[in-house]
Amino acid sequence: MRLVVIGGSAAGMSAAARARRVSPDTEIAVFEKGPYVSTSLCGLPFYISGDVKSWRDLIVYTPEYFREKRNIQVFTEHRVKRILPYKKKIIVEDRNGVEEEIAYDRLVIATGGEPERHFDGENVFYLRRIEDGIRIREFIEKRGPRRAVVVGGGYTGLEVVDALYRRGMKVEVVEMEEVLLPAFDPEIGEDVRRMLENKGIDVILGKRITSLPEGDMVIFTTGISPRNKLAQDAGIETGKSGGIKVDERLQTSHFGIYACGDCAEFRDWVSGKRRIFPLGTVANKTGRACGENAAGGNVKIRGIVWVSVFRVLDMEIGKAGLSLKEAREFGMDAESVMIEGKNLAHFMPDAGKVKVKLVYERGTGRILGGEVWGEGVQRRVDILATAIKTKMNMDELAMLDLSYSPPFSPVWDPVVIAARKGGKK
Amino acid sequence: MRLVVIGGSAAGMSAAARARRVSPDTEIAVFEKGPYVSTSLCGLPFYISGDVKSWRDLIVYTPEYFREKRNIQVFTEHRVKRILPYKKKIIVEDRNGVEEEIAYDRLVIATGGEPERHFDGENVFYLRRIEDGIRIREFIEKRGPRRAVVVGGGYTGLEVVDALYRRGMKVEVVEMEEVLLPAFDPEIGEDVRRMLENKGIDVILGKRITSLPEGDMVIFTTGISPRNKLAQDAGIETGKSGGIKVDERLQTSHFGIYACGDCAEFRDWVSGKRRIFPLGTVANKTGRACGENAAGGNVKIRGIVWVSVFRVLDMEIGKAGLSLKEAREFGMDAESVMIEGKNLAHFMPDAGKVKVKLVYERGTGRILGGEVWGEGVQRRVDILATAIKTKMNMDELAMLDLSYSPPFSPVWDPVVIAARKGGKK
Repeated sequence: MRLVVIGGSAAGMSAAARARRVSPDTEIAVFEKGPYVSTSLCGLPFYISGDVKSWRDLIVYTPEYFREKRNIQVFTEHRVKRILPYKKKIIVEDRNGVEEEIAYDRLVIATGGEPERHFDGENVFYLRRIEDGIRIREFIEKRGPRRAVVVGGGYTGLEVVDALYRRGMKVEVVEMEEVLLPAFDPEIGEDVRRMLENKGIDVILGKRITSLPEGDMVIFTTGISPRNKLAQDAGIETGKSGGIKVDERLQTSHFGIYACGDCAEFRDWVSGKRRIFPLGTVANKTGRACGENAAGGNVKIRGIVWVSVFRVLDMEIGKAGLSLKEAREFGMDAESVMIEGKNLAHFMPDAGKVKVKLVYERGTGRILGGEVWGEGVQRRVDILATAIKTKMNMDELAMLDLSYSPPFSPVWDPVVIAARKGGKK
Repeated sequence: MRLVVIGGSAAGMSAAARARRVSPDTEIAVFEKGPYVSTSLCGLPFYISGDVKSWRDLIVYTPEYFREKRNIQVFTEHRVKRILPYKKKIIVEDRNGVEEEIAYDRLVIATGGEPERHFDGENVFYLRRIEDGIRIREFIEKRGPRRAVVVGGGYTGLEVVDALYRRGMKVEVVEMEEVLLPAFDPEIGEDVRRMLENKGIDVILGKRITSLPEGDMVIFTTGISPRNKLAQDAGIETGKSGGIKVDERLQTSHFGIYACGDCAEFRDWVSGKRRIFPLGTVANKTGRACGENAAGGNVKIRGIVWVSVFRVLDMEIGKAGLSLKEAREFGMDAESVMIEGKNLAHFMPDAGKVKVKLVYERGTGRILGGEVWGEGVQRRVDILATAIKTKMNMDELAMLDLSYSPPFSPVWDPVVIAARKGGKK
């Protein structure tokens, strides 16, 4: 049997590696249009900042490793031009422009996401691939730009703002919505805006970019959309989100063709609706499941709880499940509660603040989502993610047993206090 | 109605405060034998270390606050000598040695835990009350001792070792078991021992103290047992653990008499067995429930998941549920898996190590416990506590959605990797 994987980033290489593990005899080939595979794209802001010294550190495994140690054929700089599902073939163009038909028995589509591209120029950058990160850091180190504009106030944009600020640059961030972090409820974006402005970072809201902004460098971190053209051209169904439709086994509308990572849509655990989850964790997880299933396995992904965390300067920000806005957009009868608490025991000298907003279903009290921002965020977001996955309600969350020690958290955790306060209503 | 609370630490004051909240008309009186109420005993090691400047910071609320703002009568330095359940009275001795009978309608027993007392002396200390902490720090600051012996290698003992070490003292820790941290599986104690010895701290194992050890100061942090004499003398039932027996509403064997905190035993969520939970969180939680129920409420505590975390020098250590040893002692068919992973994305320069040991039931895969030690421990322990509370099995834990960002955690969290590895067996 021959398994072909299109795309060599986290999802594709997870699929290939997992298929090899469960099926030692399958012939496995990965086609990647760029020069690198198995890259950690979430690490790019930390390469730009200089925390990560070499971009090679962001490459988990090399093509040679896959060939020699895992018996996986990896073809970099090979672009897949078409999928011919009824012939069970793909057409690939190699680095010399030569096209070839490659047969497959099982196919995994892991083409990833695609940034909106607005402008081009020597000082214009996007942030999606490792090559983008290399170009940005080279530009910074060789040209010493002093002013940067980051277009896009989502979490990737803010991680880039953090990186450039820590490099001593004067940074401006431009977001087309009226608030930063539009995937969160507006309180969070407001707090982030205030914090950024206190640091001397300019925040421009509600501005749509129609001409190239002025700055020594401009980095676009606006929306990612699923790279679905190959699939659509082959007649493979995509959903409203633009992501490739898959079933619980991650098989597409075509038998034997699977999809994973940022190019596909998955069932949202909370709302039951299908949406894209452009997260490194989901790429790895769905890639792994795809690889196992393409090799004959039966792993089911019944739904995914959105969980993310990031840091921008002094503030950590995380989210599990849905914001209040999202829950209502999904048609749920949602209510919310917000509190501000301490992240440590009140008497510890370095105790800071943390805010918790919980979103829950009226009547049942079922937790639909949680947003946490301030200090000590990740633990609380993951407690909420686990609670959401197990369909806990607010009363159960209020009674949860959690760890306590003065240098770690207060005796009544803000998550529990929020649940108690919400549960009363 | 008159509610009387015996004991003014976390459990007792939580009970009083909660009763006041749900029942504005109840007359509430608290009798505390010591001079302070509402103290944060978990903070004592951080007062000894000097992190917390004043012991007053460890007092959450003063007696005046309770009297003036909450209409709760607080009698400090009043020792309760007897409970007369059939007369619904207690006998109290005030600070002048005068005894008085006080009538109650509802009684909450929150007498706390009691350290084993071995020796007395000017340079001999126990660590249970805020007065103990004050005495220790005064001794250190006035006498400048250079060598200390800590007797008891449990987690309080290790927190004290940490505090004294950071004050520049030469420290020795003596534990009567053959391993540090006997409430954990032995791997953890072994790793802690190595870490302490690398720092120049002497670790003496398997040594029972029969004479006073030599040192400028000796601090005993050996076992805490429930202070149950008042209850036993009144004919109130206690369990094998020594803790006062309570039902789900925290009522004792006597109608109208409730118990909470370190003096009582509660149902262990994992094993179903009754045991004591000498933890600040449990004192607060059961105190709160007691207060609500004594005032006519109906809060049920169906079981408690043990969860704790602490830091000793470079190492964080936490536990949720049962160790393998405990699970087997409780008669469960338990198996375990252990892994070592990174606490952050591998490419982050400050990525450290973390070890995860999961304990699960053979056959069902139900998670019975988890121990985590190294860096980035608390979040993982609380994820496990939440998973244990919801009766998750290893396969479900392996599929959990958790947050990821390079400066916070790796894309596949060690907790998930451990669950995956265990799940295969």
